[in-house]
Amino acid sequence: MRHFLSTEDWSRAELQTILDDARRLKEVRYSDALKGKSIALVFFNPSLRTRSSFDLGMHQLGGHAVVLQPGAGSWPIEFEDGVVMDGESEEHVKEAAQVLSRYFDCIAVRAFPKFKDWSTDREDHVIKQFARYSTVPVINMETITHPCQELALMMALQEKLGTTDRKKFVLTWTYHPKPLNTAVANSGLLISSKFGFDVTLLCPTPEYALDPRYMQAAERFCSENGASFTMTHDPKEAYEGAHVVYAKSWGALPYFGRWEDEKPIRDAHQHFMVDAEKMALTDNGYFSHCLPMRRNVKVTDEVADSPNSLIIEEAENRLHVQKALMKHLLA
Amino acid sequence: MRHFLSTEDWSRAELQTILDDARRLKEVRYSDALKGKSIALVFFNPSLRTRSSFDLGMHQLGGHAVVLQPGAGSWPIEFEDGVVMDGESEEHVKEAAQVLSRYFDCIAVRAFPKFKDWSTDREDHVIKQFARYSTVPVINMETITHPCQELALMMALQEKLGTTDRKKFVLTWTYHPKPLNTAVANSGLLISSKFGFDVTLLCPTPEYALDPRYMQAAERFCSENGASFTMTHDPKEAYEGAHVVYAKSWGALPYFGRWEDEKPIRDAHQHFMVDAEKMALTDNGYFSHCLPMRRNVKVTDEVADSPNSLIIEEAENRLHVQKALMKHLLA
Amino acid sequence: MRHFLSTEDWSRAELQTILDDARRLKEVRYSDALKGKSIALVFFNPSLRTRSSFDLGMHQLGGHAVVLQPGAGSWPIEFEDGVVMDGESEEHVKEAAQVLSRYFDCIAVRAFPKFKDWSTDREDHVIKQFARYSTVPVINMETITHPCQELALMMALQEKLGTTDRKKFVLTWTYHPKPLNTAVANSGLLISSKFGFDVTLLCPTPEYALDPRYMQAAERFCSENGASFTMTHDPKEAYEGAHVVYAKSWGALPYFGRWEDEKPIRDAHQHFMVDAEKMALTDNGYFSHCLPMRRNVKVTDEVADSPNSLIIEEAENRLHVQKALMKHLLA
Repeated sequence: MRHFLSTEDWSRAELQTILDDARRLKEVRYSDALKGKSIALVFFNPSLRTRSSFDLGMHQLGGHAVVLQPGAGSWPIEFEDGVVMDGESEEHVKEAAQVLSRYFDCIAVRAFPKFKDWSTDREDHVIKQFARYSTVPVINMETITHPCQELALMMALQEKLGTTDRKKFVLTWTYHPKPLNTAVANSGLLISSKFGFDVTLLCPTPEYALDPRYMQAAERFCSENGASFTMTHDPKEAYEGAHVVYAKSWGALPYFGRWEDEKPIRDAHQHFMVDAEKMALTDNGYFSHCLPMRRNVKVTDEVADSPNSLIIEEAENRLHVQKALMKHLLA
Repeated sequence: MRHFLSTEDWSRAELQTILDDARRLKEVRYSDALKGKSIALVFFNPSLRTRSSFDLGMHQLGGHAVVLQPGAGSWPIEFEDGVVMDGESEEHVKEAAQVLSRYFDCIAVRAFPKFKDWSTDREDHVIKQFARYSTVPVINMETITHPCQELALMMALQEKLGTTDRKKFVLTWTYHPKPLNTAVANSGLLISSKFGFDVTLLCPTPEYALDPRYMQAAERFCSENGASFTMTHDPKEAYEGAHVVYAKSWGALPYFGRWEDEKPIRDAHQHFMVDAEKMALTDNGYFSHCLPMRRNVKVTDEVADSPNSLIIEEAENRLHVQKALMKHLLA
Repeated sequence: MRHFLSTEDWSRAELQTILDDARRLKEVRYSDALKGKSIALVFFNPSLRTRSSFDLGMHQLGGHAVVLQPGAGSWPIEFEDGVVMDGESEEHVKEAAQVLSRYFDCIAVRAFPKFKDWSTDREDHVIKQFARYSTVPVINMETITHPCQELALMMALQEKLGTTDRKKFVLTWTYHPKPLNTAVANSGLLISSKFGFDVTLLCPTPEYALDPRYMQAAERFCSENGASFTMTHDPKEAYEGAHVVYAKSWGALPYFGRWEDEKPIRDAHQHFMVDAEKMALTDNGYFSHCLPMRRNVKVTDEVADSPNSLIIEEAENRLHVQKALMKHLLA
């Protein structure tokens, strides 16, 4: 049995197997591959695409998904071991994970950070506790990384670029009125570096560097592939010759939990928005962004709606890669 | 590809095709007509029947439905084009509609008016934007009209009356403690006039006339059918000889957004409640009302529970007409 | 047609039939037994296991479940007959139950007490009104009893003990920071007494006795089986020689609705927590508790995680007994 919590411990070859199957599933949507199988979709945070694509994907493979929202329609859950449960939580993850494992063949979990203390959030405690007590595979539907999004992005890039080795991938920070989760940014680094890109991280200041765990993993993967990993704060340098511009906003980690101090820096970099002028510097580069995406804040309508925009393709691919992933874990 | 946003642009013959199929589906509930098909049910407002009947109906045809509630379990959505999305909305309808179109074969949307400004609400912006950006058929699950309810009502009336031509249909305003959506009232006018009834609109004062778009459409349809369209404020005149009394409450449009000024008029017309005394004036007429329905406010228990009450039949028919509609759009 | 509102009016032999089928369904999970059948799951309160197990269970039998949450995603419902509905409720149970009966083959309802007035709550009005107006079987998913939990518990006990006649069953009150529903406690008495156990009710003071209806039913069932029924406030006496310790917290009925007066008594009995020392007094007894369960408040980690703990098994059995129940009612 294997969990899918992060792509860090999955090899490029293993991930490619899933991507190859996803491409087949994009052609032929229905099968009985997972007939008699079921998945619990546990959402601690909202979702549109993830919910739709997992629920529908499982149905298209002949199986069944049940959506659970602890705290909304379900009981609030405790994640610490050994505690006296005299607070708000009515249920321990130990029971929740074990019982769901008895009912379902797979458990998928979305649990965003709490945004108070990065040293706590970076432990990814919620999904790790689910994985610890579950006796069936656990899938990450976004916590502090978003590995399903990684697969969807990589599938879209391979569809357009063919081989990705030594192509230039730029992960650019963009403005957003709120300090956001670093999950998709971390994931952008992980998947691009694993698949052979020369990777450039563009962000306003050194404080917007991502967690060392992901910076170092990206460096290591790039180096293993004979590719380069660079961080820059100069948009021109980053965009120049890029084949892919992947945009995402995130809050600077040194300000985690005291976001009012970060706000002036964020506000000063609204010009990091992806626009046609910057894209003109690229090598006819593709633009993408996970969804949801704030238009004319993170990217101009012009770029988002251009033929080189992959946002809809990447989102569609969520369906296909997740089906391939479920088959890989359960079939 | 065709949307089902309003019955206005569907001919009587086309709608009759759907009603005829619905009658067959009422006999034989299960088939594989939509095997491999799926529908996204997007609810911006609560629902009991609509949710049940669409979800179950799709299952009974061999397909699959996924329920999404933007703002509750999903992201809040922006509907204006070209705006700088620096407010509450995280996602643009352009992406939402396109991505759902990649996943699903059909998108159904419930989006009630915002009740602040009728000149805005009457544009039916939310569902029109979904229809604009969707590449699959969009179904109206109630916005400023409620076309699925229309089909269910007409099916019930045909079951009881056979032909409906030149029968007398009364749409009566009734009291409700809150100012309600005009959707079902608009729909009552549209469907009864399209199917040949002599239509009478009974309401407290001229200010309760419905939007000219629907008043004029009803007049036009009646005239095309050689039938009459009348507005009256006199219950006796309206009920006399009626074959159908269809009740609904709505807020007067001239007071839209400043409802405190409308309240005294509404409060003064609580006697518009449908009761046995008024029904005695009809030609052994049928009573109906979409659900939910406040008993002893809009209608007395006596009338609601009488053999001539069609409320349960109309509600059941939602299942059948929507299945027929989905088949018509997707099969 | 028969409802499943409480086990009180179901014979031991009938319930055993369901339990026997549940054991078969635990071996072979998939079938077409309920193909073409559907169930509405109406939740007035949160759920994890109940929702998962009914939805998945129906799917595994070839049928389809739809989840409805009145007040959240659906309309608030009125339960009194003959009232003028000018308050918050938009819909009467009369319509809700009749319409759901037209759509679905079965209606399951979860409706906890309102916790204001036990003389009202004990009437179990919500589910009784659903049963009254429904034309299909109604299943209790927990109101003031929890009969599905009873079946799951009894299945787990039979798996471990074989015959349960004249074995010692202890229902022990335990501390919880909030005054809880007596449903599972009532159900613990009903099912253990019906299946031949010698039953001991352990609680802090006479005020924690359960409603006379359930106390008397338990006495009657015990007496019919030639078994004993005892209430005690002495943990030592209760645990001594026990084969089963079933834990649950509940608020004392005489303090219903004025819980601040009960709090000091509850707080003074935190030592009723199930621990290894007490379990050592039993005859190698099994421990169980419905879920959710607050660890180190109601039971120590040590007991909850011991080989004699049946909590996960009981929870798993929810799936199997409910499938057997649905087959029994609908096949």
